[in-house]
Amino acid sequence: MTNAGFNPIRSVTATDENGQVSTVQVASEISLTLLMNEEKIVTLMTLGTHPKALAIGYLRNQRLIKEMPEIQSIHVNWENGTIQVNTFAGEKTRRAVTAGCGQGVVLSLNQLHDIHRLKLNIQQTLIDALLHTLTQQNEIHRQAGGVHSCALCQGSEIIAFVEDVGRHNAVDTIAGLMWLHNWPGDNKIFYTTGRLTSEMVMKVANLGISVLLSRSGVTYKGIQNAQEIGMTLIAHAKGQQFLIFSGEKNVVFDG
Amino acid sequence: MTNAGFNPIRSVTATDENGQVSTVQVASEISLTLLMNEEKIVTLMTLGTHPKALAIGYLRNQRLIKEMPEIQSIHVNWENGTIQVNTFAGEKTRRAVTAGCGQGVVLSLNQLHDIHRLKLNIQQTLIDALLHTLTQQNEIHRQAGGVHSCALCQGSEIIAFVEDVGRHNAVDTIAGLMWLHNWPGDNKIFYTTGRLTSEMVMKVANLGISVLLSRSGVTYKGIQNAQEIGMTLIAHAKGQQFLIFSGEKNVVFDG
Repeated sequence: MTNAGFNPIRSVTATDENGQVSTVQVASEISLTLLMNEEKIVTLMTLGTHPKALAIGYLRNQRLIKEMPEIQSIHVNWENGTIQVNTFAGEKTRRAVTAGCGQGVVLSLNQLHDIHRLKLNIQQTLIDALLHTLTQQNEIHRQAGGVHSCALCQGSEIIAFVEDVGRHNAVDTIAGLMWLHNWPGDNKIFYTTGRLTSEMVMKVANLGISVLLSRSGVTYKGIQNAQEIGMTLIAHAKGQQFLIFSGEKNVVFDG
Repeated sequence: MTNAGFNPIRSVTATDENGQVSTVQVASEISLTLLMNEEKIVTLMTLGTHPKALAIGYLRNQRLIKEMPEIQSIHVNWENGTIQVNTFAGEKTRRAVTAGCGQGVVLSLNQLHDIHRLKLNIQQTLIDALLHTLTQQNEIHRQAGGVHSCALCQGSEIIAFVEDVGRHNAVDTIAGLMWLHNWPGDNKIFYTTGRLTSEMVMKVANLGISVLLSRSGVTYKGIQNAQEIGMTLIAHAKGQQFLIFSGEKNVVFDG
């Protein structure tokens, strides 16, 4: 996993409402074309800090790769902006791939892990502690804005923290890191700054994670899906406040 | 254009951090599968308030339809969640369609309208007035959260205002409304609550609009693209504040 000397933050000049010019930091955004067995799959616009995890997680969440041992090699070429994943089977993909932002839904409920049985409890004090720690972490957002972040948490520990220009890229990168490090999902909590749409719920369930926490809002279908698969869904989580929309029995009020 | 009796806001119960249960309003999110000449193009997760404009705008921004007169008929079927667009040519698409959130880029700079020549001036007082008016409009966001909004403005008038669960759906819906009403882009200002990534800049340029205003941040590539095509790019526009990242010469400081 290399950042390849890539700087995710750039300085630019901007003019404010009084006509004053100043230097402002903004998030980078690079174009990375993902190829699998030499076939072009998708061009991702990304911050570029975790190219391999992003590529692996994208292929995992698109169900183009079923498990990590299928992958033979992975190579990033920053010169031409490509990332090449080869599988042992060497198969070409057989279907169009679409993704992200409610535009091109791939996962469906009946394909998902059964996370009903997990019933991971989460304490109110743990949520408070996580939200406090997470606030300190969003470095690129604080410096440059224009990014979403996701975190993978175990107890009060943040195992992985990823920022990207697209909220789906951040989720996919966490999915890739989980495979790369062989981390199970059943004892994890997933945090995102993004909204809890149905796609977000399904992607997280696909990782075998049963607790999903967001700083933002939630959609009705997101709630319906979470209830159906037994996910604990907590939105508007900021400071010491939150709202539980599904799985309230799994939250322990110890505050 | 029909809302088909569809309610974009739903009431649900949620449990807060004190264990108190209350009724909360959330945004709906429905699955709408777009077919063109009976071929499945994409499944969109949408608020569902402007299905026809969304479908037309999606096909426009994906360059699957070059101009409005190509469309023969369009039919929404809420029973099975599909929208069927037929063209006079009746052609099947010849390529995979991908979209949204930096995942699947379709537009490229050299295909875009040349908006260099437009140089539409925008007054600081007009920006202030628009931001003030726009704050009153985001009805679903205010009631239920979980949505992004876009607006098409001409002078101080808001011609169209669209909220959707995906920021790309909102942009595509505006693109569809512009074709449906035969509105030119050269005298318009585009507003979004979403971040100004390179894709957002290119989609708006594709509509022939040269001024893009956002409540959120901006990426470095978004700025680079805007500078290259001569777009006036204004981010962090909230209250009476904003930051101009491209085309500052087109902003008149009359405040």
